[in-house]
Amino acid sequence: MTLRGILGVAVVGAGRMGADHVRRLDRATSGARVAAVADVDRERAERAADGVEDCAVHSEPLAVFDDPAVGAVLVASPGPAHEEVLTAALERGLPVLCEKPLTPDPESALRVVRAEAALGRRLVQVGFMRRYDAGFRKLKSLVDSGVQGRPLMLHFRHRNVSSPPGFTGPMTIRDSAVHEFDTVRWLLGQEITAVTVVRPAASSGAPEGLGDPQLLLLETSRGAVADVELFLNCGFGYQVACEVVSERGTARTGDETGPVVEGPGARCREIPPDYLVRFADAYDLQVQRWVDAARRGTVEGPDCWDGYAAAAVCEAGVRARETGARVAVETEAPPDLYR
Amino acid sequence: MTLRGILGVAVVGAGRMGADHVRRLDRATSGARVAAVADVDRERAERAADGVEDCAVHSEPLAVFDDPAVGAVLVASPGPAHEEVLTAALERGLPVLCEKPLTPDPESALRVVRAEAALGRRLVQVGFMRRYDAGFRKLKSLVDSGVQGRPLMLHFRHRNVSSPPGFTGPMTIRDSAVHEFDTVRWLLGQEITAVTVVRPAASSGAPEGLGDPQLLLLETSRGAVADVELFLNCGFGYQVACEVVSERGTARTGDETGPVVEGPGARCREIPPDYLVRFADAYDLQVQRWVDAARRGTVEGPDCWDGYAAAAVCEAGVRARETGARVAVETEAPPDLYR
Amino acid sequence: MTLRGILGVAVVGAGRMGADHVRRLDRATSGARVAAVADVDRERAERAADGVEDCAVHSEPLAVFDDPAVGAVLVASPGPAHEEVLTAALERGLPVLCEKPLTPDPESALRVVRAEAALGRRLVQVGFMRRYDAGFRKLKSLVDSGVQGRPLMLHFRHRNVSSPPGFTGPMTIRDSAVHEFDTVRWLLGQEITAVTVVRPAASSGAPEGLGDPQLLLLETSRGAVADVELFLNCGFGYQVACEVVSERGTARTGDETGPVVEGPGARCREIPPDYLVRFADAYDLQVQRWVDAARRGTVEGPDCWDGYAAAAVCEAGVRARETGARVAVETEAPPDLYR
Amino acid sequence: MTLRGILGVAVVGAGRMGADHVRRLDRATSGARVAAVADVDRERAERAADGVEDCAVHSEPLAVFDDPAVGAVLVASPGPAHEEVLTAALERGLPVLCEKPLTPDPESALRVVRAEAALGRRLVQVGFMRRYDAGFRKLKSLVDSGVQGRPLMLHFRHRNVSSPPGFTGPMTIRDSAVHEFDTVRWLLGQEITAVTVVRPAASSGAPEGLGDPQLLLLETSRGAVADVELFLNCGFGYQVACEVVSERGTARTGDETGPVVEGPGARCREIPPDYLVRFADAYDLQVQRWVDAARRGTVEGPDCWDGYAAAAVCEAGVRARETGARVAVETEAPPDLYR
Repeated sequence: MTLRGILGVAVVGAGRMGADHVRRLDRATSGARVAAVADVDRERAERAADGVEDCAVHSEPLAVFDDPAVGAVLVASPGPAHEEVLTAALERGLPVLCEKPLTPDPESALRVVRAEAALGRRLVQVGFMRRYDAGFRKLKSLVDSGVQGRPLMLHFRHRNVSSPPGFTGPMTIRDSAVHEFDTVRWLLGQEITAVTVVRPAASSGAPEGLGDPQLLLLETSRGAVADVELFLNCGFGYQVACEVVSERGTARTGDETGPVVEGPGARCREIPPDYLVRFADAYDLQVQRWVDAARRGTVEGPDCWDGYAAAAVCEAGVRARETGARVAVETEAPPDLYR
Repeated sequence: MTLRGILGVAVVGAGRMGADHVRRLDRATSGARVAAVADVDRERAERAADGVEDCAVHSEPLAVFDDPAVGAVLVASPGPAHEEVLTAALERGLPVLCEKPLTPDPESALRVVRAEAALGRRLVQVGFMRRYDAGFRKLKSLVDSGVQGRPLMLHFRHRNVSSPPGFTGPMTIRDSAVHEFDTVRWLLGQEITAVTVVRPAASSGAPEGLGDPQLLLLETSRGAVADVELFLNCGFGYQVACEVVSERGTARTGDETGPVVEGPGARCREIPPDYLVRFADAYDLQVQRWVDAARRGTVEGPDCWDGYAAAAVCEAGVRARETGARVAVETEAPPDLYR
Repeated sequence: MTLRGILGVAVVGAGRMGADHVRRLDRATSGARVAAVADVDRERAERAADGVEDCAVHSEPLAVFDDPAVGAVLVASPGPAHEEVLTAALERGLPVLCEKPLTPDPESALRVVRAEAALGRRLVQVGFMRRYDAGFRKLKSLVDSGVQGRPLMLHFRHRNVSSPPGFTGPMTIRDSAVHEFDTVRWLLGQEITAVTVVRPAASSGAPEGLGDPQLLLLETSRGAVADVELFLNCGFGYQVACEVVSERGTARTGDETGPVVEGPGARCREIPPDYLVRFADAYDLQVQRWVDAARRGTVEGPDCWDGYAAAAVCEAGVRARETGARVAVETEAPPDLYR
Repeated sequence: MTLRGILGVAVVGAGRMGADHVRRLDRATSGARVAAVADVDRERAERAADGVEDCAVHSEPLAVFDDPAVGAVLVASPGPAHEEVLTAALERGLPVLCEKPLTPDPESALRVVRAEAALGRRLVQVGFMRRYDAGFRKLKSLVDSGVQGRPLMLHFRHRNVSSPPGFTGPMTIRDSAVHEFDTVRWLLGQEITAVTVVRPAASSGAPEGLGDPQLLLLETSRGAVADVELFLNCGFGYQVACEVVSERGTARTGDETGPVVEGPGARCREIPPDYLVRFADAYDLQVQRWVDAARRGTVEGPDCWDGYAAAAVCEAGVRARETGARVAVETEAPPDLYR
């Protein structure tokens, strides 16, 4: 293993998530520093870079590739802007951590996959941070160990306090449920083959027309079934929980938050307010592991193909949501690089 | 309220459940005694009645109706034998607690419903004992209070160590899932309008051909959706759990069993082995409340109509299981007596 | 086993606890009925007996002994009134369930012990209802099984919303901590040999001068140590919890109350408001088992000696509380009847 | 806030804990690198430094002070070796993170305190890592918020699988209970004024003569009382738990470990095997915060005075353990620097 000095990272996109990554790389990551921040809103980039030593600021994302201090790129700009940055990084052979989605649709995702496959080496990691959450990692170990036999069913809960302004039906699939799609694929090591979306009566607490909550059914290539409660306006907290039901036992994660507090008539545990709190450690670990791998010249996390496969399931999910029917997932065969 | 002396109860059917009820009435119920036990297997009836004071034994179920000491009947014989006993009790105006199912199919159930409706007063209670479980009762209070808004989704787990010998696919619906059907109707005060059965890969721990586990989807008359994991050969314990997801919060029951024990590497709680342990208190309370009501001349628990409605959902469930399609539930309109 | 008809019980004392027992015997106990209620406040006795069939009412406790319908006595009058009733019951050979304390002090308790010992058969059971709580019973089984080795330490929590008006320092020991004294003796099968009382700063929520909370240390005859948090004005609920720490593991009970409810920012479980709710099932079981035994002509629960031993520990506890010193417990040797 | 480049840290002592810190600084800490490792066992130092870039290795601890690349020192050598290194660091004005104990006894600790006080600025942080554990931090916030009123009692559990070879009675206080001593002082912001040690029968699982487990009682300057179960050979896992009982509520931490796994007859959560697992995140955060502060030229964690105060309580604890009596804690008045 060779670590090649401190990794200079360019953060592209300085919104909430990008700014959080700047802070993380600057304060909580070993072996890396923020070499540049780019955002089409230059002021936003400057705010995010404020206080970071030796950090360039750009209003043009591609400008980061001309900076010799930049050895890797973290992409946190909106999805439609990803393909251009990813393509540029692949051309220059720079490692990338790309916030999900890889790109907004399977077609563009497939172009990125093919470009990387043509290059013949993996450079791109997709930001499915749940794979770095301690609880999910323990579920994964347990499933992989086989001690409970084959996994047969997965039960997911995915609840947010409220959906962001302007959130649409398709976004409930592409921006929220996409995490469960990746989690199913990763936990089971199986592809998702079909999606059905069941729509209960909408909550009066959800925006008119959003049709929140939803119940998703996912079928996999070796016959497991996952159900996903997706409730984006539950009002009371952020919850991500998963139960794996195997042939001889079950395991679940998602309820382990903090001290027990006893007060008037009740014994309570806090529910975190949002994903930045719930998955703070997972984000830290994801970035640290990505930096560690990049300094060794490798990529080890979820890859381009995972990004493409998730996009393909999203496409089926969006149609399933609109039609009420079971929709089969269609994907290309994976290039050799990802087998 | 008038209590009319000690209630003499005839227990019809002295199998595992009937014998358990004899013991319960004799030892753990106030205001009642076992006046007679009837079973086509006379020896079995005698074993169940052993040690009970002043208790007649019959091998002909209808014989109990000739015994002046009998003021009420508890039916625990196999389902196909129920209609004849129920009809006889209705004719004589005796209160009945009838173990589920009311009868094996909607047609015969409807005949009982009509006979009781013609009589113009309720005499029959069906043994849906979950309605007497402390945890489920608290869920019901919470739902009825409305403090969390309308219920939108219900998540059920129903797991057994193993299915009995000879258990068939239709029995997984009629004998096991029927409890969830009643629970949904009772908790929500809504009818179930459609059933879909999703079949994951079968567990290698389940009998060949049974197709265990299953995932059931239930839709209700006001748009709630319930998912039911039905896993009858999970191997590790008996579990019945339910989570109600409402507009502004959730509530769940089913994990509260006994002391926390810490030993090598783990902090554990016991999972009960079967329903007689899990629902021991619920059975006691059900019978006590039925006796109390009978002594006052009333019936207050789940009624004939609940028995018929559950049978109708079972019918749809069995077809949904066989076809893989969503099957609408068809019921008659309820007679005035049950509105 | 012979059960001798329905047991006619006289309830002596119709305060909160006595009235609760009347209701329990009348509605929730098999094989018994309330034959008489006695209270020096006759109106109170009448209110408690209201609605109970064939129930005599007396304002003179000893009058119940002249009633041929009375086959057993449940004593729920204030402690100072117990000795007279117990003595009368012993003279007549009637089984008694006596709410704790047996009597208010070790001297009078010893007189009752000696009277029963002279009689040569056990008739009196003391109302230490925790021995009938499902959680405590499982702790006891685990301890008795020896699977975790010898018990070395016990940690108790005993919290009330608020102490009753007029509650005094000695009452915190004699009326509250007495339950832990009995629990330690019963769980371990060991005598308590010394008591120390440690007094933290008093809570501003406790009555002036009561000195609440307290921490009690109990030492036992084979070297186990128990600590008891006694907090009678915690304000938020009623809690009784116990953790047994043995050589190879631990077990605890007391936190298993009801459904999990999720709402704004928290996942909560209810804490019961008082002992009648927390120990409702234990009271039911205690009375049922006492009735069952009485009908068979035996007594099986905590006996006179347990009542005396608890009183002796209370005596030491009151002195320990006053002096701040470790106080050894002094007891007579038990008569043969209790060995 | 000024961060002055990457902090070069010398790790003095390359045993289990020192090697763990080398890995942490090298892989999981932002803004720092390991500039040198020193251990009297040079091979051990070399093993710990293996794979770390540009890292000097010394067999003489004080040699690290001659290395211009060293800007801070992490002391993880045995306690008796601390004073010399601390004194050298103070002389050179280098920030230090010193694993507990500061020094082995109050006298030497006081010398370090006075040296730092004479210097007039804080340079030394003591490694009480619990202050960085997420659960303990939430307890602290809750206590500081005052929403539950004043804290009155604290209940601690401190359990290890087994004590290390050669562990002695005094070490149970100085090496193990010292963490509770610091936690009490930090959580409450109060000094510990007296210690009593109660000794139950020894576990047969503990080394002969160690007298394990023990129950410690700590009294504080404003009247709070803490009890500490110290059980170093419990055999089943590593547990550190704390419950704060305040005037109007309680809060506890220590049971939140990982997924719930259901298997034969039980629903379980893992108990971690040791402190490196249990407090992995706390160690990471402690070191990151220390590095961040050092780069800004400050020290913010537990200081020399905390180290001295803990040593003074240990002294009292060791005597209390030996004598069985309550022992008052004696401390000097704190120099102005620590007020």
